[in-house]
Amino acid sequence: MAKLLLTSMGPSFSSDTNQATSGYSKIYPAFQDVNVMVIFGFGFLLAYLKRYGFSSIGFNILAAVLGVQWTVLLERFLFPDEKEKHLPSILTASMSVVAVLISAGAVLGKANPFQLICMAMVETTAFCASRWTNVYILEIEEHVSLMHVHIFGTFFGLMVSWWLTQPSLRRETGKEDSDVTSDLFSMLGTLFLWMFWPSFNSVLVDGVVEKRNAIHNTYYAIAVSAVIAFALSALTNKNGKLQMTHIHGATLAGGVALGFSAHIIQSPWIAMVLGFLAGVMAVLGPYFVKMCLNSAVKMYDTCGIHCMFGMPGLLGAIAYVILFVIYNWNNLPARGYPALIEVGSLSITILVAVIAGFITGILLKLNICKAPPVSKYFDDQVYWEFPHLAVGF
Amino acid sequence: MAKLLLTSMGPSFSSDTNQATSGYSKIYPAFQDVNVMVIFGFGFLLAYLKRYGFSSIGFNILAAVLGVQWTVLLERFLFPDEKEKHLPSILTASMSVVAVLISAGAVLGKANPFQLICMAMVETTAFCASRWTNVYILEIEEHVSLMHVHIFGTFFGLMVSWWLTQPSLRRETGKEDSDVTSDLFSMLGTLFLWMFWPSFNSVLVDGVVEKRNAIHNTYYAIAVSAVIAFALSALTNKNGKLQMTHIHGATLAGGVALGFSAHIIQSPWIAMVLGFLAGVMAVLGPYFVKMCLNSAVKMYDTCGIHCMFGMPGLLGAIAYVILFVIYNWNNLPARGYPALIEVGSLSITILVAVIAGFITGILLKLNICKAPPVSKYFDDQVYWEFPHLAVGF
Amino acid sequence: MAKLLLTSMGPSFSSDTNQATSGYSKIYPAFQDVNVMVIFGFGFLLAYLKRYGFSSIGFNILAAVLGVQWTVLLERFLFPDEKEKHLPSILTASMSVVAVLISAGAVLGKANPFQLICMAMVETTAFCASRWTNVYILEIEEHVSLMHVHIFGTFFGLMVSWWLTQPSLRRETGKEDSDVTSDLFSMLGTLFLWMFWPSFNSVLVDGVVEKRNAIHNTYYAIAVSAVIAFALSALTNKNGKLQMTHIHGATLAGGVALGFSAHIIQSPWIAMVLGFLAGVMAVLGPYFVKMCLNSAVKMYDTCGIHCMFGMPGLLGAIAYVILFVIYNWNNLPARGYPALIEVGSLSITILVAVIAGFITGILLKLNICKAPPVSKYFDDQVYWEFPHLAVGF
Repeated sequence: MAKLLLTSMGPSFSSDTNQATSGYSKIYPAFQDVNVMVIFGFGFLLAYLKRYGFSSIGFNILAAVLGVQWTVLLERFLFPDEKEKHLPSILTASMSVVAVLISAGAVLGKANPFQLICMAMVETTAFCASRWTNVYILEIEEHVSLMHVHIFGTFFGLMVSWWLTQPSLRRETGKEDSDVTSDLFSMLGTLFLWMFWPSFNSVLVDGVVEKRNAIHNTYYAIAVSAVIAFALSALTNKNGKLQMTHIHGATLAGGVALGFSAHIIQSPWIAMVLGFLAGVMAVLGPYFVKMCLNSAVKMYDTCGIHCMFGMPGLLGAIAYVILFVIYNWNNLPARGYPALIEVGSLSITILVAVIAGFITGILLKLNICKAPPVSKYFDDQVYWEFPHLAVGF
Repeated sequence: MAKLLLTSMGPSFSSDTNQATSGYSKIYPAFQDVNVMVIFGFGFLLAYLKRYGFSSIGFNILAAVLGVQWTVLLERFLFPDEKEKHLPSILTASMSVVAVLISAGAVLGKANPFQLICMAMVETTAFCASRWTNVYILEIEEHVSLMHVHIFGTFFGLMVSWWLTQPSLRRETGKEDSDVTSDLFSMLGTLFLWMFWPSFNSVLVDGVVEKRNAIHNTYYAIAVSAVIAFALSALTNKNGKLQMTHIHGATLAGGVALGFSAHIIQSPWIAMVLGFLAGVMAVLGPYFVKMCLNSAVKMYDTCGIHCMFGMPGLLGAIAYVILFVIYNWNNLPARGYPALIEVGSLSITILVAVIAGFITGILLKLNICKAPPVSKYFDDQVYWEFPHLAVGF
Repeated sequence: MAKLLLTSMGPSFSSDTNQATSGYSKIYPAFQDVNVMVIFGFGFLLAYLKRYGFSSIGFNILAAVLGVQWTVLLERFLFPDEKEKHLPSILTASMSVVAVLISAGAVLGKANPFQLICMAMVETTAFCASRWTNVYILEIEEHVSLMHVHIFGTFFGLMVSWWLTQPSLRRETGKEDSDVTSDLFSMLGTLFLWMFWPSFNSVLVDGVVEKRNAIHNTYYAIAVSAVIAFALSALTNKNGKLQMTHIHGATLAGGVALGFSAHIIQSPWIAMVLGFLAGVMAVLGPYFVKMCLNSAVKMYDTCGIHCMFGMPGLLGAIAYVILFVIYNWNNLPARGYPALIEVGSLSITILVAVIAGFITGILLKLNICKAPPVSKYFDDQVYWEFPHLAVGF
């Protein structure tokens, strides 16, 4: 691999122009925000299982760094001139790898590290391929193509999770519960994701006004979805009590929903309505999923990524198409074409995600992966050496 | 509200100049630092109560995002041309909302979320009104007007806390204690506040030299107050042991004290003396408060905000006036006028804070707010659904 | 001290040029990353001892802020013109103080705060002196001179630790173990160190291309060393289980190894090979150290800094010399001189570290320091007042 990297990455280091690098130093702080989200935010977000904290955080960084390295290598081949022109590959690779981290949420506690690594490799490859199609064939902007990451990660993760779901899996064991400390660690991750989501939605946007709009609109959307999370969490509970899982999920849904359109929305209230809808989906969604989908499809999604990332992502994609049509209403025949393209690009992304996820699911069920038995699910002790067994283990 | 926002915020998005937005991209990293302080720092700072961690962190983000949205809306009306000229409103709103977060420290564990939301609404409105008076009538700089936020939050919070203090409230219950994990989470918040305080004191300062001085002076002051916190904590304990609450409070006091004058101080040693005095106040203050004030005034301030933010803030305001007089000594008759103005502005801030806090306190005691009984104070279980009851609950 | 600061720091505030300060505003975000590493990252990295969390974090910030203030003062005298020209002293002081924080890892749990303060004072002085020799006599670049900090901190810490190691110190007490929560807090610190290491290695590098290379190469190296940490941790355990301490140490080793040469490496694969070697050292090193060194030299290094910072640092220094020779192969007689100089500078650093550490060790054994008895090692209760004793204490 090192040799490949030599030939593939080497040249780019010398062909720099001052322009590109000064642009890079400008976005370095925003890159660090994205880096914090990828390495720290998602890891701690998933650390809410009381007996699976080490694995949630540890396997997150393992999958993230492997995925980033692999994606950098792939992007070198797939997007040769893009890189030269404007973007540092580690940034786009870090954003691509979010798909893996979302999928990891769906199989949280059910896959061993080897399975996660396989998944990370296949998923980043599939996402790069899907992104290549979007950027080169459909001529979608690079920023927009990367915002498909939430939808891709969700559908891929759900397919994999469908294969890994065992009929014997029951919640009774109590291993899948959170405790107070693990919920606080998870809150820690949630807050860092929340705070830096405006960076995620704006870092690749060109143009100062667009970038500012992307930051502002994302902030308004996540602010509204945080409020909605609290309101609906209390309203849907029979004692009027709040549930931590609602807060974790719904505060972030607004940021996901704004991914596509944050930079083109002209008034904050549109962003706020999107944030509101995303928050509603993230809190009410799990009830419907539990009632209908789980029993029908026998799919078991540990972390609830379907309602946290998938549905808000779809909402955002649809809103992007609608807003695009509205903003270009007067000139629709001439300028409406990109809306159609976006619909096509969305379909391709979902298609690639479902197919790749399905195949990956089969792969992970192979004997070679040594999938852990159900009795070993959600348990750090299977993978980690404990110096002495702590209270509660 | 959305409609209001449309008309009130909408236009500003189109009337951008490149100048303003490029300025914005420069301060975006510092805005993120302030954002981390508001959303993460204050939430975890207050998470030291062993049975109130969820509420401390959860209600903090709820109050913060509601306050920011409300303030953005208010500022649009109150400061119409200020916004156009130089400042993104989310930044000033985030700084204004610190008043709410400080007040929330005074009523920590004693107010339900509905009361906190009411308080956030009234307090941000009152602070905006006070700031409007300072900026438009007294013609104080915007940066300095925002630095009144610590003083405003303290006096407002103390008045509210005075109304919510029940005669039956006793410490014996033990609910108000911290445990090791909650103290570490609190330390986490403290450190993030500490690290980013230079950003808070410098983000709105114009001029590169002034900004650099603000960053340096704030760093020196918080460095000294951190050292003093350790020294005095050991000296005031009969066994020479350190107390975590001292460290939490006193490390931050230096930053508060430097708010007003960080950008005009010419020598680091002045900053260090201010940091020293603020640290001393924050450690020794609670002893005097406990002896005199608590018994006399029957005011109960959970988190000790009086000594952590109020007194250092007052010290900073006085130091600002004194330094201003010293630096303009030769030309005092002609240029001394602003010092008087600052005294007036401080008085107005305190006056508005006390009156608004008093009225808010009465509001929160109304039956409509369903204030929790004393037996439910400091307890997460009143507001949060626990999947299963953890050990210790 | 305040008076000294007045005369020593005061003048620099007025002699600013716009150039210098605009440069400063550019590196402020990277400074904040370094600040987070120093104040937060190292503190929480060391918080893995289950009964020593308060002290690890608290004494870390105490030693850090004292060290920074003292170093700023020293640098004012030792590097008078350097400061004027390009660098803000707080940044270089924060980077210098990393030596103290590394040494503190070696004596973690065995030294009281007074001993740590003494150590911080002596160590920053010695490091400044060593750096002065390197910069002024050997004419090493300032950036490279600061990268000796890991090696200096390790050798200094090992010497001090050698003096403080008691023959009666045994691991049986169990006090030195970690528990689940403390390991997660430690992971928190590790991740923040990991994420911001590219900033540490690049902040002082001049030139946009060099800076970008430094960021990229460091990222690749820590990515590889994180993967190696997981792989080797599983391979070296008889049950194939992972060990948290390996993950903590080895993920960071890559960043240390890249310190010297990150900005001159031309191909990512060289950075990755260095990251690989550093990761291997950090995981396998402790086994050899335990077998040979500990029994022979009777040196006891609590946190394993020797393999986490020392050996990867040496590897980095050697790699720097080799790379320098290779890149200048064609013109070696004329341009090879700096390689020799670097070898000399490395020797001086180690020499100063060992001598100063030896003397400091003797100092800390003096009665005046009131060194805690072995029975009080690794215990927060010796230094901290607990409101009530928590479960497990």
